[in-house]
Amino acid sequence: MHAYRSHTCADLNKSHAGQTVRLAGWVHRVRDHGGVLFIDLRDHYGMTQVLADSDSPAFAAIEKLRAETVIRVDGRVKARDASLVNPKLPTGEIEVYVTEVEVLGPAEELPLPVFGDLDYPEETRLTYRFLDLRRDSLHHNMMLRSNVVRSLRNRMWDIGFNEFQTPIITASSPEGARDFLVPSRLHPGKFYALPQAPQQFKQMIMVAGFDRYFQIAPCFRDEDPRADRSPTDFYQLDVEMSFVTQEDVFAAVQPVIQGVFEEFGCGRPVDPEWPLISYADSALWYGTDKPDLRNPIKMQVVSEHFRGSGFAIFAKLLENEGTEIRAIPAPTGGSRKFCDRMNAFAQKEGLPGMGYIFWRKGEDGAMEAAGPLAKNIGPERTEAIRVQLCLGEGDAAFFLGGKPEAFEGVAGRARTEIGRELGLTEENCFKFAWIVDFPMYEKDAETGRIDFSHNPFSMPQGGMAALEGDPLKVLGYQYDLACNGYELVSGAIRNHKPEIMFKAFELAGYGKDEVEKRFGGMVKAFRYGAPPHGGCAAGIDRIVMLLADTANIREVIMFPMNQRAEDLLMGAPSEPTNEQLRELRLRVLPKE
Amino acid sequence: MHAYRSHTCADLNKSHAGQTVRLAGWVHRVRDHGGVLFIDLRDHYGMTQVLADSDSPAFAAIEKLRAETVIRVDGRVKARDASLVNPKLPTGEIEVYVTEVEVLGPAEELPLPVFGDLDYPEETRLTYRFLDLRRDSLHHNMMLRSNVVRSLRNRMWDIGFNEFQTPIITASSPEGARDFLVPSRLHPGKFYALPQAPQQFKQMIMVAGFDRYFQIAPCFRDEDPRADRSPTDFYQLDVEMSFVTQEDVFAAVQPVIQGVFEEFGCGRPVDPEWPLISYADSALWYGTDKPDLRNPIKMQVVSEHFRGSGFAIFAKLLENEGTEIRAIPAPTGGSRKFCDRMNAFAQKEGLPGMGYIFWRKGEDGAMEAAGPLAKNIGPERTEAIRVQLCLGEGDAAFFLGGKPEAFEGVAGRARTEIGRELGLTEENCFKFAWIVDFPMYEKDAETGRIDFSHNPFSMPQGGMAALEGDPLKVLGYQYDLACNGYELVSGAIRNHKPEIMFKAFELAGYGKDEVEKRFGGMVKAFRYGAPPHGGCAAGIDRIVMLLADTANIREVIMFPMNQRAEDLLMGAPSEPTNEQLRELRLRVLPKE
Repeated sequence: MHAYRSHTCADLNKSHAGQTVRLAGWVHRVRDHGGVLFIDLRDHYGMTQVLADSDSPAFAAIEKLRAETVIRVDGRVKARDASLVNPKLPTGEIEVYVTEVEVLGPAEELPLPVFGDLDYPEETRLTYRFLDLRRDSLHHNMMLRSNVVRSLRNRMWDIGFNEFQTPIITASSPEGARDFLVPSRLHPGKFYALPQAPQQFKQMIMVAGFDRYFQIAPCFRDEDPRADRSPTDFYQLDVEMSFVTQEDVFAAVQPVIQGVFEEFGCGRPVDPEWPLISYADSALWYGTDKPDLRNPIKMQVVSEHFRGSGFAIFAKLLENEGTEIRAIPAPTGGSRKFCDRMNAFAQKEGLPGMGYIFWRKGEDGAMEAAGPLAKNIGPERTEAIRVQLCLGEGDAAFFLGGKPEAFEGVAGRARTEIGRELGLTEENCFKFAWIVDFPMYEKDAETGRIDFSHNPFSMPQGGMAALEGDPLKVLGYQYDLACNGYELVSGAIRNHKPEIMFKAFELAGYGKDEVEKRFGGMVKAFRYGAPPHGGCAAGIDRIVMLLADTANIREVIMFPMNQRAEDLLMGAPSEPTNEQLRELRLRVLPKE
Repeated sequence: MHAYRSHTCADLNKSHAGQTVRLAGWVHRVRDHGGVLFIDLRDHYGMTQVLADSDSPAFAAIEKLRAETVIRVDGRVKARDASLVNPKLPTGEIEVYVTEVEVLGPAEELPLPVFGDLDYPEETRLTYRFLDLRRDSLHHNMMLRSNVVRSLRNRMWDIGFNEFQTPIITASSPEGARDFLVPSRLHPGKFYALPQAPQQFKQMIMVAGFDRYFQIAPCFRDEDPRADRSPTDFYQLDVEMSFVTQEDVFAAVQPVIQGVFEEFGCGRPVDPEWPLISYADSALWYGTDKPDLRNPIKMQVVSEHFRGSGFAIFAKLLENEGTEIRAIPAPTGGSRKFCDRMNAFAQKEGLPGMGYIFWRKGEDGAMEAAGPLAKNIGPERTEAIRVQLCLGEGDAAFFLGGKPEAFEGVAGRARTEIGRELGLTEENCFKFAWIVDFPMYEKDAETGRIDFSHNPFSMPQGGMAALEGDPLKVLGYQYDLACNGYELVSGAIRNHKPEIMFKAFELAGYGKDEVEKRFGGMVKAFRYGAPPHGGCAAGIDRIVMLLADTANIREVIMFPMNQRAEDLLMGAPSEPTNEQLRELRLRVLPKE
């Protein structure tokens, strides 16, 4: 017989009754039923109930076992009485009478129990991660992640992509975040950087002619702490394709992502309709570029109904250029109580408040519009608004006005709040949308400087000609995939023409020299026959978080940093030795 | 029609004749056949011949195309005349008459041609890696690597392993090489390290109960330059299993590795017999712990034949303790010329020479032993040696004496040389051997200090009891897999018992405090129920190098460093900005 086990803790059923078996695993729980000791023996695969009565030669040893001790037991499989069968457990038909027990790995008193659902402080959980990982939910999340990554890989292979590894110790590749630096010992005073993303490498793989690349790629960014983000690194499904348009990228990626959500969504419906929504429409309709389409509310422009109306605040506001009034329709929200609560929400978000109208059954039994705003603008305008928004009795609408940039964010959050409060937002399903036509540039409100709004490597729609006009009107072949209110994928058709690239950077204030210096490898590559290409990157952590239904990224990473970017288990970061610093020719400066 | 292509450059055959198609790719070569221009149009998938005569509206544009320009062509497929069919090319049945051409990516004069087999300096190749990668052999190697990694992964999944990612930004994990350090911005003065291997993490994954782990894992070591090794990082197939013995690891790994060599070996035979050879036997028989079993020569101890013999050098040498005479049999090596050449080889390797005997047809037609050594020891001993070594007429034997440690290395290299020179070593096949029973400790020749000879985390054979005796006699459950003279895999059954671990370290001079400090996370984990576990790591770069039949690691890495650990394409390492140094609170010291 094998030294440790003849079966796993998930293998045995009544067909094994009478057999002598050997099992190994962790002591999940010991119960003493009056002279009979029951152990739930746990391994990666499952749980088996083993027991010993006082006749067993192993009884005395089992009595002393502490939880989480690793043991090997020999015993005989016995079918349980029908009344004792546990249908929830794959091994619930049997139990094992122990004749011999061996402690393979003793356990001290636990700082963190594995059995049970008690919540423990995250510091404790991270310090004893190896115990925390034994708990069912984390174990499940890690297996989920492993299986999701496997499935993503297989799906990419199946549609003709090849996986290539790109360098991890490389040059600084400015992508908007901070680099982690790695001092060079062979070249003291010089530093490598860990890649913020394999962006330049994947583009060069296209220039090298490989046509369809993907990688489950680690990306490193020295970020300030945030709850839903690792402060050091994350993984993305990195994708790039040659000779493609935006539509080709969508056609390649949708089945992969949709397939993974269908495979691992535990039956939660995955909407197969992935609408294309322009960045401008998304901002208008949803107040965000990552809309949650499970929420059916779509905002609308209702400026005309307020122009010159008796509601002076909006009427005056509309006299200024670039202003708008937008409505958030709130079906079933037609009560003063609800409207006041939403008004308070807007105030909490820093606005003076949100105007509203709601429609109720009047005293005469007919529908009437209520709320101060309705009175101010009169019944005709109120009715026109109701018709435009397709609302009726029992519904409400909220109104925000000003320059859209100033209130879009709050409007979006109010839409989320309204959808949730009113139960309009579907739960337990996944809805996706491609957000397209991102503007290439934005103007800094304070300095008035033009800068890239997103990826500087994207191809401007209209090419060189577009760059000759107003930069703020230039749209890029740049896209995001939104899912349930999160950005899941981001990508672009790249700018593969050096002269358009230099021009695009020039508009953002970067001279040719600087571009050559910062992106030298890629610019050089584009001079020797670059194919049109594009791609995207999908956040693995985010996908797994959505599937695992958790908002804490540390629940889907095997050995995460805490929010102060410390590894409490391994004790990182730590002080270097003098010898190490000497070899790197570095000195640590004292605190100022 | 699609904006760039209706087919790839490998798609078209005579069934497409008459169709109008669109192709895109690189101008591999242009040939002018008197008014007809032929282009070999290349993409990732293949090559298609396209042509234009002076009637074509595209003729003038094609005439100007430089090699490696990316173009899109529209044209008509025409079946070639039977006499012009190129059976070597999948598209060799057809050609495409171009009616329109568009330059998608122009190319400047090339620093490195893609067409042709000219060899270029490695610096040029690395600086223009994106061009170098377009060449057939590198393109092939990258695809090979990608497919090998895919196959390894699938094979591991198929036998029940799960892939988990372990941290890349982590704590220093001393494994005998230098760490790359990463300064922390949030904790100035403290540093992370890049993992030399996921050793501690994978062991903790076992302690966490995941049973079977693997990972295609990047490993980082700040190495001094060596031709067959990357100076910064490499990839390994990292494997760990719980509740296993050494034999379980072998049984899991052999089918994976053997399968990959069979799948990608291009028909080169893969010996399914993987003998287990003890470290001691391997040293004796092959003079190395990574023997090349394609070479049939096995060395033998022949001390007895020289003890008290007329060959004074060996006879005297044997009077010292710990000395031995070993023979390298050399079938078919029986000529003075060959023997003298091997003797010269030994001298070049720093030995005074190698004694030899060879057997030839004497003047009387009978076999006779020749060479000075034979004369010295006389016919009886000479014959006894011949019988022991199973040699005959036309064969030779070489002799080395002294303390085995002193000559084993040269003996091994001589065996390799003899096998190759005599054509005894099989070519174009793969032969494997598990080398087992490595000693746990070795004595430093100069200081007399006892230190670990290999992995300090291995379980000593015999457990605690063995550690009470002579450390130099303790063997570990530690193993390597040798293939064709290279170490392909290295692994061990781990020491999962803290008290045995502390004792093992104590023998090598490390106190408990130091062990706790250096391997704190793992030691802590072992206190709370650790299963017996073991595993191994297989070098991906090495596997691909063997399959691609190249000795240069840079031929199997997409974007390699040069031997001075510089990335010539991206320009790494480079000077940091003052702002970066300030944020990290570091100062670079001037050269001494």
